[in-house]
Amino acid sequence: MRYLSEKCVNLKPSGIRKFFDIVSEMPDAISLGVGEPDFDTPWHIREEGIYSLERGRTFYTSNAGLRELKVEIGRYLKRRQGLSYHPDTEIIITVGGSEAIDIALRAMINPGDEVLIPQPSYVSYEPCCLLAGGVPVVIELKEEDEFRLKPQQILDALTDRTKILVLPFPNNPTGAIMEREDLEAIAQILIERDIFVLSDEIYSELTYGSDHVSVAAVPGMKERTLIINGFSKAYAMTGWRLGYAAGPDWLIGQMVKIHQYAIMCAPTTSQYAAVEAMKNGDRDVANMREAYNGRRRYLLHAMEEMGLQCFEPKGAFYIFPNISRLGMTSEAFATRLLEEEKVAVVPGTAFGDCGEGFIRISYAYSLEDLKEAIGRVGRFVIRHSGGRPGGAAC
Amino acid sequence: MRYLSEKCVNLKPSGIRKFFDIVSEMPDAISLGVGEPDFDTPWHIREEGIYSLERGRTFYTSNAGLRELKVEIGRYLKRRQGLSYHPDTEIIITVGGSEAIDIALRAMINPGDEVLIPQPSYVSYEPCCLLAGGVPVVIELKEEDEFRLKPQQILDALTDRTKILVLPFPNNPTGAIMEREDLEAIAQILIERDIFVLSDEIYSELTYGSDHVSVAAVPGMKERTLIINGFSKAYAMTGWRLGYAAGPDWLIGQMVKIHQYAIMCAPTTSQYAAVEAMKNGDRDVANMREAYNGRRRYLLHAMEEMGLQCFEPKGAFYIFPNISRLGMTSEAFATRLLEEEKVAVVPGTAFGDCGEGFIRISYAYSLEDLKEAIGRVGRFVIRHSGGRPGGAAC
Repeated sequence: MRYLSEKCVNLKPSGIRKFFDIVSEMPDAISLGVGEPDFDTPWHIREEGIYSLERGRTFYTSNAGLRELKVEIGRYLKRRQGLSYHPDTEIIITVGGSEAIDIALRAMINPGDEVLIPQPSYVSYEPCCLLAGGVPVVIELKEEDEFRLKPQQILDALTDRTKILVLPFPNNPTGAIMEREDLEAIAQILIERDIFVLSDEIYSELTYGSDHVSVAAVPGMKERTLIINGFSKAYAMTGWRLGYAAGPDWLIGQMVKIHQYAIMCAPTTSQYAAVEAMKNGDRDVANMREAYNGRRRYLLHAMEEMGLQCFEPKGAFYIFPNISRLGMTSEAFATRLLEEEKVAVVPGTAFGDCGEGFIRISYAYSLEDLKEAIGRVGRFVIRHSGGRPGGAAC
Repeated sequence: MRYLSEKCVNLKPSGIRKFFDIVSEMPDAISLGVGEPDFDTPWHIREEGIYSLERGRTFYTSNAGLRELKVEIGRYLKRRQGLSYHPDTEIIITVGGSEAIDIALRAMINPGDEVLIPQPSYVSYEPCCLLAGGVPVVIELKEEDEFRLKPQQILDALTDRTKILVLPFPNNPTGAIMEREDLEAIAQILIERDIFVLSDEIYSELTYGSDHVSVAAVPGMKERTLIINGFSKAYAMTGWRLGYAAGPDWLIGQMVKIHQYAIMCAPTTSQYAAVEAMKNGDRDVANMREAYNGRRRYLLHAMEEMGLQCFEPKGAFYIFPNISRLGMTSEAFATRLLEEEKVAVVPGTAFGDCGEGFIRISYAYSLEDLKEAIGRVGRFVIRHSGGRPGGAAC
């Protein structure tokens, strides 16, 4: 097409979407595919949005966001990570974490710059990097490493053109986390080789067993890290489209410029509601985390029972079982499961080629729905195990 | 800075912002600078947003937007312009008109492609074009042409690399419109030379005297036009961040792909409210239009009285008087007016170099505020006219 951008035409559409389009036309299907909380936004947060509409706060906010919200985010990062960011120069409010990823890459990439992208991971990093003119360099996270990023993997991927490392932990789809020692081990290389980190911490509030540690909290890293976070996952606020980024003023300033021209400002009602979330949302987050954790344990037990090897996720709301012993590809597994048992899961390959042999199951569903769906998955697995003993994973 | 994109660093920040930053720290200043309606969003539209929050509709919508809203937009374009767009393949819901401009350019531009940008015009076209790797080619709209775009101007600017024409009418900042004959005159060239049109019709509901005509309604143009519009200006919904684009399926499909990766979806509450705006908002628009028209006539009269030559705007909510007879630049006029009389206006140069000699005054303010502010502007003009007779514009 003469009128279209080659870069854009060459982008693959998201591998997650395909399954949803099928599911949406299959009335009795159960989806375990969606990456958003099943909870409604807590009432007191919605109430604040309602109040701001009643008061007629329907105007633009300043480009970088409501000052009151940026101040609360600053306090939150101090309280949770011990990190200090100036609300006027080091924080920007965005349309979800997604916009922050996109404009950060646009603000940093010159044509040909290389961006290290560990996979399996969220579907947007690679396309946003390509659209910005960058060269994605994929690092394959491994099940035997608990899907953590290892120092040697960075060393192997570095070249003279490497500018940015995307650090996607807690990880979607694997549920892997990086603990302080893991971060310290990679920090040394990143500092020595002068690599900047785009740390996507959108699942930071959803960890099980230990608190999330930001890479920016490792000595020497704050000045070379952009933290990306938002309200979608922790506060069940996906539809509000509200996220933020915190980092060095020289980068935030450039991001504000792109944001101003391309977006103007994040939605005003959502910004007022988010102030309430930051001020009084801790208990809601704790309650939802507890619910997720119960489901997580149920699913791990169920996987064990049906003989599917499954890495224990410590974060986010997904499990990522290994289905390779069934002798079918991830795509075939997902397609046939949907056809035969009307349960939708996402093939691991939607998150990178190295997701082959895995599927992503979301537990952002009620235990009741999960039990019905997992019963069907179990039937499917038994039927396709072909006499091979359960548990004897290859 | 080793970490930053050169393209981004080289972008100038918006010339509008600078004045607002000063105004915001000057308590008794009056601003006539802002480009957003002074009205709150009509109550029945806000009520629909509130209702959707009460009902817990806080989840993502599909990437391209709520089907119900796309259907209503299709009906609206049929009703107002006689144009048919399929809601499933030819309409996308965006974060304001701004995002639509940005992703349309990203979906179309290959490095080096030329984009014709008539100026004075909205501040985002040039930066978004540059960020997408395009080459902006400015066409200077002229006061003696009533700031309309003339066929010869397009012919003079065309090269083998020309791909897109941005058509910004009704125009911000001049208030100029393009009538059917103007559009027909340029359409012939655009068809012959195979140029695509990005038609920014965000002020389409705010015309005085005649109804807006979309270039897509000119025979042969629909297949080469993307209409960009939204809810900010017509329905006083700026803070809701909601816009849309309608155009050929091959382009909308590519835009949905970028939108999906960079934004996910437009804010859900805003989408439900916008359905109400489309269904029952016509009377509100008519009332606001009438109020704007009264202010417009008051301002034109006031400009005449103070001897400032002023083109009669037929659209949007700005007047664009010629201040060149005072012998100062637009920037100097705006700076000194703010210092001496504490009234903020925007120098014409914020909208392109050819805005030199003009200032933009917004009439999205109550008549009462306008009268107070214009009294001050009058004093300033008299003081700086240096004995030169008012009205003897050069």
